[in-house]
Amino acid sequence: MTDKANLLAKFEQIQEYWTPKIIAETNGQLVKLAKLRGEFIWHNHENEDELFYVVKGELLLRFKDREIQLTEGDLYVVPAGEDHLPIAPEECWVMLVEPAATKHTGDVSDERTVDVDDQEWI
Amino acid sequence: MTDKANLLAKFEQIQEYWTPKIIAETNGQLVKLAKLRGEFIWHNHENEDELFYVVKGELLLRFKDREIQLTEGDLYVVPAGEDHLPIAPEECWVMLVEPAATKHTGDVSDERTVDVDDQEWI
Repeated sequence: MTDKANLLAKFEQIQEYWTPKIIAETNGQLVKLAKLRGEFIWHNHENEDELFYVVKGELLLRFKDREIQLTEGDLYVVPAGEDHLPIAPEECWVMLVEPAATKHTGDVSDERTVDVDDQEWI
Repeated sequence: MTDKANLLAKFEQIQEYWTPKIIAETNGQLVKLAKLRGEFIWHNHENEDELFYVVKGELLLRFKDREIQLTEGDLYVVPAGEDHLPIAPEECWVMLVEPAATKHTGDVSDERTVDVDDQEWI
């Protein structure tokens, strides 16, 4: 990364839902942006925490034992190994921070799964 | 971290400038919030990248060979080992992501230096 990234300008470049795009790397963690809409799939990341920061809209994170309702400006870290189901009733824009090796669908494969090596920088 | 953090609510709790407060931990990295105003000191973090995300206001990052001007919504990663001088002409609110061991003044000691073990969670 040699230049700054403006989040809103980067979000303008994202057309698809549930397809995180990389905007920065820091200490082996990737900063990604994604547009979400609808219900994703239950999954977990065995060894990696996953940070969610809601830039726009609302995001419900459903866990086996609780629900976390996030709105604009809210930040939450999903602990490693915890099953979670992200649900965005309307379009939601999130920033994610997670290790370079993290697959966005965890160990679950789905038609929306993007292979780690295929994740794009914008 | 068991609950979500709302950034604006957390910023309301910060009274001092140049005193990062921790709001979350993810994969050994700490997410911190700080209010900045004025000129800090030249310093570097030998082994750690430092991510800046400007939530409010403007931040100038002066390097030996360039200047990066950040405004609301801009994100920039200062590479490990690079000397930098943060300058906030007016009050500026930033979110930082950096390893737990990172001192905010690097190897330089200043009357504003907060020891890593003394950094507070809010």
